[in-house]
Amino acid sequence: MTTAPEQRASLSLRHSGSYAHTSSALQERPSGPAQQFSAVRRQSEQLCQPLTAEDMMVQSCDEASPVKWHMAHTTWFYETFILSQFDPSYRPFNSDFVWLFNSYYNSVSEHPEKKLRASFSRPSLESIFDYRRQVDGAVLRLLECSTGPELEEIETRVILGMNHEQQHQELLLTDIKHAFWTNPLHPVYGGPLRHESPAAAPLQWHSYDGGLREIGFAGEGFAFDNERPQHLEYLEPFALASRATSCSEYLEFMQSGGYGRPELWLSEGWDAVQAQGWRAPLYWHQDAGSGDWSVFTLRGRVSFSQIAETPVCHVSYFEADAFARWAGKSLPTEAEWETAAREQDVSGNLMESGELHPQAADVEGASPGSATPRQLFGDVWEWTRSPYVGYPRFEPLPGALGEYNGKFMCNQMVLRGGSVVTPQSHVRATYRNFFPAATRWQFSGIRLTKAL
Amino acid sequence: MTTAPEQRASLSLRHSGSYAHTSSALQERPSGPAQQFSAVRRQSEQLCQPLTAEDMMVQSCDEASPVKWHMAHTTWFYETFILSQFDPSYRPFNSDFVWLFNSYYNSVSEHPEKKLRASFSRPSLESIFDYRRQVDGAVLRLLECSTGPELEEIETRVILGMNHEQQHQELLLTDIKHAFWTNPLHPVYGGPLRHESPAAAPLQWHSYDGGLREIGFAGEGFAFDNERPQHLEYLEPFALASRATSCSEYLEFMQSGGYGRPELWLSEGWDAVQAQGWRAPLYWHQDAGSGDWSVFTLRGRVSFSQIAETPVCHVSYFEADAFARWAGKSLPTEAEWETAAREQDVSGNLMESGELHPQAADVEGASPGSATPRQLFGDVWEWTRSPYVGYPRFEPLPGALGEYNGKFMCNQMVLRGGSVVTPQSHVRATYRNFFPAATRWQFSGIRLTKAL
Amino acid sequence: MTTAPEQRASLSLRHSGSYAHTSSALQERPSGPAQQFSAVRRQSEQLCQPLTAEDMMVQSCDEASPVKWHMAHTTWFYETFILSQFDPSYRPFNSDFVWLFNSYYNSVSEHPEKKLRASFSRPSLESIFDYRRQVDGAVLRLLECSTGPELEEIETRVILGMNHEQQHQELLLTDIKHAFWTNPLHPVYGGPLRHESPAAAPLQWHSYDGGLREIGFAGEGFAFDNERPQHLEYLEPFALASRATSCSEYLEFMQSGGYGRPELWLSEGWDAVQAQGWRAPLYWHQDAGSGDWSVFTLRGRVSFSQIAETPVCHVSYFEADAFARWAGKSLPTEAEWETAAREQDVSGNLMESGELHPQAADVEGASPGSATPRQLFGDVWEWTRSPYVGYPRFEPLPGALGEYNGKFMCNQMVLRGGSVVTPQSHVRATYRNFFPAATRWQFSGIRLTKAL
Amino acid sequence: MTTAPEQRASLSLRHSGSYAHTSSALQERPSGPAQQFSAVRRQSEQLCQPLTAEDMMVQSCDEASPVKWHMAHTTWFYETFILSQFDPSYRPFNSDFVWLFNSYYNSVSEHPEKKLRASFSRPSLESIFDYRRQVDGAVLRLLECSTGPELEEIETRVILGMNHEQQHQELLLTDIKHAFWTNPLHPVYGGPLRHESPAAAPLQWHSYDGGLREIGFAGEGFAFDNERPQHLEYLEPFALASRATSCSEYLEFMQSGGYGRPELWLSEGWDAVQAQGWRAPLYWHQDAGSGDWSVFTLRGRVSFSQIAETPVCHVSYFEADAFARWAGKSLPTEAEWETAAREQDVSGNLMESGELHPQAADVEGASPGSATPRQLFGDVWEWTRSPYVGYPRFEPLPGALGEYNGKFMCNQMVLRGGSVVTPQSHVRATYRNFFPAATRWQFSGIRLTKAL
Repeated sequence: MTTAPEQRASLSLRHSGSYAHTSSALQERPSGPAQQFSAVRRQSEQLCQPLTAEDMMVQSCDEASPVKWHMAHTTWFYETFILSQFDPSYRPFNSDFVWLFNSYYNSVSEHPEKKLRASFSRPSLESIFDYRRQVDGAVLRLLECSTGPELEEIETRVILGMNHEQQHQELLLTDIKHAFWTNPLHPVYGGPLRHESPAAAPLQWHSYDGGLREIGFAGEGFAFDNERPQHLEYLEPFALASRATSCSEYLEFMQSGGYGRPELWLSEGWDAVQAQGWRAPLYWHQDAGSGDWSVFTLRGRVSFSQIAETPVCHVSYFEADAFARWAGKSLPTEAEWETAAREQDVSGNLMESGELHPQAADVEGASPGSATPRQLFGDVWEWTRSPYVGYPRFEPLPGALGEYNGKFMCNQMVLRGGSVVTPQSHVRATYRNFFPAATRWQFSGIRLTKAL
Repeated sequence: MTTAPEQRASLSLRHSGSYAHTSSALQERPSGPAQQFSAVRRQSEQLCQPLTAEDMMVQSCDEASPVKWHMAHTTWFYETFILSQFDPSYRPFNSDFVWLFNSYYNSVSEHPEKKLRASFSRPSLESIFDYRRQVDGAVLRLLECSTGPELEEIETRVILGMNHEQQHQELLLTDIKHAFWTNPLHPVYGGPLRHESPAAAPLQWHSYDGGLREIGFAGEGFAFDNERPQHLEYLEPFALASRATSCSEYLEFMQSGGYGRPELWLSEGWDAVQAQGWRAPLYWHQDAGSGDWSVFTLRGRVSFSQIAETPVCHVSYFEADAFARWAGKSLPTEAEWETAAREQDVSGNLMESGELHPQAADVEGASPGSATPRQLFGDVWEWTRSPYVGYPRFEPLPGALGEYNGKFMCNQMVLRGGSVVTPQSHVRATYRNFFPAATRWQFSGIRLTKAL
Repeated sequence: MTTAPEQRASLSLRHSGSYAHTSSALQERPSGPAQQFSAVRRQSEQLCQPLTAEDMMVQSCDEASPVKWHMAHTTWFYETFILSQFDPSYRPFNSDFVWLFNSYYNSVSEHPEKKLRASFSRPSLESIFDYRRQVDGAVLRLLECSTGPELEEIETRVILGMNHEQQHQELLLTDIKHAFWTNPLHPVYGGPLRHESPAAAPLQWHSYDGGLREIGFAGEGFAFDNERPQHLEYLEPFALASRATSCSEYLEFMQSGGYGRPELWLSEGWDAVQAQGWRAPLYWHQDAGSGDWSVFTLRGRVSFSQIAETPVCHVSYFEADAFARWAGKSLPTEAEWETAAREQDVSGNLMESGELHPQAADVEGASPGSATPRQLFGDVWEWTRSPYVGYPRFEPLPGALGEYNGKFMCNQMVLRGGSVVTPQSHVRATYRNFFPAATRWQFSGIRLTKAL
Repeated sequence: MTTAPEQRASLSLRHSGSYAHTSSALQERPSGPAQQFSAVRRQSEQLCQPLTAEDMMVQSCDEASPVKWHMAHTTWFYETFILSQFDPSYRPFNSDFVWLFNSYYNSVSEHPEKKLRASFSRPSLESIFDYRRQVDGAVLRLLECSTGPELEEIETRVILGMNHEQQHQELLLTDIKHAFWTNPLHPVYGGPLRHESPAAAPLQWHSYDGGLREIGFAGEGFAFDNERPQHLEYLEPFALASRATSCSEYLEFMQSGGYGRPELWLSEGWDAVQAQGWRAPLYWHQDAGSGDWSVFTLRGRVSFSQIAETPVCHVSYFEADAFARWAGKSLPTEAEWETAAREQDVSGNLMESGELHPQAADVEGASPGSATPRQLFGDVWEWTRSPYVGYPRFEPLPGALGEYNGKFMCNQMVLRGGSVVTPQSHVRATYRNFFPAATRWQFSGIRLTKAL
């Protein structure tokens, strides 16, 4: 990896620097798709900077993929859905890559079982970077040479491809976190935590009227098919917590026996608690002797006190739901969440902060009479109590791209708002993330709500 | 079993008789809870009439329980939630039964693993019938002797217990159907099919306006906690198919390669097709030589032509969804279904018909300009595309009874309308049944819808 | 079952009676195969006497079959291998039974998966008894009417069938023990334990010279193919323990942490300890409060003190091996065991004792200078350290009967000597029983040996 | 890896060179343990020469480990059992490595689950090579500075460690073969096959008398504890096939329906055939169109004709046993095999040949009247019909080293003779290899025998 020229400008995660200038580049929204494309591509490679080729081989759980695979698959997406279709002169970098790096698009080709990805020692990491360079060049040339409606379609797909790649940037970080945690030596991705966590602001409630609300995406710009069409939903009045649930609050739930009281749990959640032996969020560890908790992060293992006031994360829907029941509250529906979030700009502790871990919503930032909840964007994905289904009149994209979202609309729950490893330009108020209820390897946390 | 006096009046399933007078007894809604209670209790025992004590031991799949267990557990429900709480003089029939026949109420007691139920050779069937008699007598005495608010609460619980027992009546029939199908000799529960199936009426579409609709139960009388509270939902205009999808129509889907085309399936459904080797609905069998299909029913194995025009049943949500996608339509939401159904009385091919298998919605019954869909009640449970969640402001029943419904609100899909083995007095327009998407052992079928 | 005439003479297991006269009948070895055949058939039915039709449906673990199935399958054996082949006028009792009650003879017919046996509510128990009667009559007539070499072959097969049935008599008792233990009510098969267990005689060692020994069966009379041919094996000098290991001795192993010390276990055994959570023999239960042990037997649950001095049973090979290593001894090879046993008559606490549980080798029976070990026959099957393989020049029986033993010669260990539920006339010094090393549902125990 | 100085002298597997001078170095048996130690250490590193750091991360089946792990674990063995015990000044290279690279020695330390080895991206390959260098230096110094009985014990352990490392050299090659086969691109370890396979010599039989034979190791020099003590076994007269079974011969078995005839298989083998879908040896592939077979080797995929006459390999014991039954012969016992082998020198197609695939026992080498079988050493490990048990009076090594062999003496079968990836100096006539009966990832083949 040391030879990849992209890395010369990379930001050091090991030191106190931040993603600042990349981030500002993205925030400035460079005018053209070409510049945006280049920035996204560069970002992926910067994320690999602390990693060795060996690190990028590891696939440590069913949900995860090796980092090297992410780097190849994101490239495959542009090759398959843009270059092969719009550039008659384009020759695939390697005819095997066409099926080798297909994830799950049955309409495109046969593809290897997910678990085999850990065996892809060949192609080498170097050849994956060569692959990236060839595709990058070809995409940029295509953008430059195309015109008219074809250019429009190409740009549309480039933007889809960038959003696709941003999802994999996030996965790359969640996957390497799990990989490093699985390794008994617990390697560290970034440097030590930068700040002592301040005290989180006291929990308040923000009220919202009931009535018909427009839900889903209808404006200009990019959104996934699953955010459309905009439609009406009827809401009852509700109140939303002013911030995400903190580790301290969650520890109270644990200390009151939360993991041992079946009445707090969904039946399937209770089964998971028994079968998996859950006693705390993923990555929490209790010292057998002292009883003290510590937490594994992308910046190494830290003592509980260092993150006590930060949002709890790596909890499953089952845990979020049980916590809410214990607290006498509930989780929001996605329509409730969206209603609150559309009043706000997208900002918060997102990937560009370079923090790599959720931060406390501290007292300073919280004007006591603030009319809006904080931390809706960034820090942790917030489990909603809404199962993931298509909106009324939902239409998947035509062709193979229709497999992107629609076929997963079963037995998953919606999460909203992005996390500390979500790129800022990737998320918005209407954005719908989704995972099965037992999922814990994501930066997933809790926002409480209550009916009024 | 031959000594149970209840059975002298039982209707012979082996002959052409029907459940008519029982049915009418229920339809007349005998004025008092005591009479209704007795009728429900008698009905359960009549359903056992074609069965031997050995048949009542079989537990042939994870979803099912032995019939003997159903007979005991329904009795346990009254003993636990009524007699033990309202009759200070009551002594449990057998102190072991208190935990032995608990299904899943963690708040009541420890309970045996479900799969152990097949080992309950003791208590004997005879003692289960003795248990029923003691509990029946005690419940009736309690109803007679109680007064005031206590009587009211007792009556409420008796009615809950009756509805609980009716659910187990339906399960009893679905479970014994599976048990007899598992037995390589394929025993028959009822006599042969009574009718040749007539041609099903042509499929038509009934249109419904969009707008705010009241969904859920708000009236007098019994409803489960999960049907409450009534609340508003906003619907887009839609049209509902005039009848359930027939076996012939489903065979077309199969013959067009439906089970081999991943683009028609949810991702998890496609996995189930591969893992389970699904190629047809449960209970369908294709002769290796002739290629002819036959179908196992509670009235024995019948040729495909005998049921070709009847509603397809024993399909999973995944199959219903794939069929709808293939047909270019979709499945209704539960709000759409309920909107259509609340205009109708509860009538149809339900348990009291004694048919034991869905029937064709034949041409005669269908006035071409009929304003309402047929078969909404009875024949087959209709999969909706709505995941099973609590309605806004849903509150489970207090105490252990709160475990009845609420804790299952995850990873299940709602079905509506009842089937040919659902008691008529048990179902209504607001009634919500729910099963995991891969479930096939129920009489579950397909009703199409389309957006307007 | 109450109509089966065979049962009129049955011995009551619930009272203090014993199998005495049946036993002596067998011991006298009635001269003809017909009489022996009738006695074995009667014995099977007597074993069912304490059982209901419902009991006979239960199949509570992978190793077990329902008792009803044993009653049918043993009958099928005579029908398939004798009547269908030697009696041209014979018509099968039911053409479905021909494949339905085949256990694993691939050469005979397709057969149902073993786990389906629990679904065989039909045929009813009564029809199985009718089946038995028809086959009994036909076999007896065939024995009477046949002559010459054909009679010889028929007699050979009747004797094989009887030995086969005796194996299933033993399985019937081990299977119903497991079934009753699985039932949370723990029903009791026989009456209470008859005796207080006396103190076991002190353990002594009996020495044997090394040298070439004849191993295997060579004499007149019946033996299974796997006992042949007799051949030479070279033994080193060894000593054999004077009796089986007692429960008290095994408890010492447990109390010294035996189940928690990996160095005592075979690698695969240690894995089994972890995966299965073994902490004691099967059927042992420790009271959470008092720490006292009790043991489930065919005569109900008894306190540890009642069986402390009896041979430990229901241990796996892994446990027997770990115990031996802990004791600084080893388990015998089957050749060592056979060398010691061939000096003795077959007698001991076998099925005919009616004890239904191993008994202590008490002091009285043990003359201090006794030259021979006790309890070689009966009480518990003794795990040897010999894997089950064919003897040199082993030839399976021709045809389908060749599937009887040979195809199991892999990944099983040999046990010797019979247990308290083995019929006396069934076992002998050369008899080889075999089970996988993790098996515990058999009456399997421990005999120590040491090299000299 | 490119920095490892050991590799400068490495033999190129991609060209026609051979391991000749390494091999001769080993064959010459350099007088001192220090030289032997250095040669073995160098050999391991040469085997890595064609591999990248990414290749060395792959763990593609339960049996296998990543190559990097083999390189570390073999080093750990010397550090743990020699340096830590005999060199008071020695400081572990890294205190985490002490438990991280423990395979299964419970007595030494806790150790990570085997499947986690694929997550060991850290320590890096470079640091593993540093680890090797530190340990190599320390071992050589210790050998130089020690004297007397301590030197003797150190030398004994160094020799054990070298033999341990040679086992891992073999595993390294079998594991990378599986890894490359799992990779859908099928990378190639060595260059193309060197030779066209000549016709195999016709099969002949070599006869051996029966009688008492000395089995096991008793001489000077190194042998594993499981080869001791030498003892007597009584053999019946037998004949051994003159060479291993060829691919052509095995194809005949396949073409006669061998995989579809249950009567040819052990019961557990037949289950494996069904469950695993075995239809040919591992690594064989049949083209769906032409029906032609090809075979994946360490030298890439080759057509069947290229290896038709070479010994069949990568068959399980179950397949070897079924083939022998089909051929009307059997597999040898390990005593039979050893009796034949001890008359021969250890030579054949072993690792030092550099062939990387079994070779045909061609006509030229076979003098028709030759008194001894060929290919006993090298080409393929030969499954015997002997379960792996301890010899009479077997004593494991004291302490943790006792876990080396003894605890695996259950449910495994013995293989003899070494394969094309076994180092020549590692194997001998008394050498006992062992694997579970379903194992196929080893170079395991078939030698027939028959009773006389």
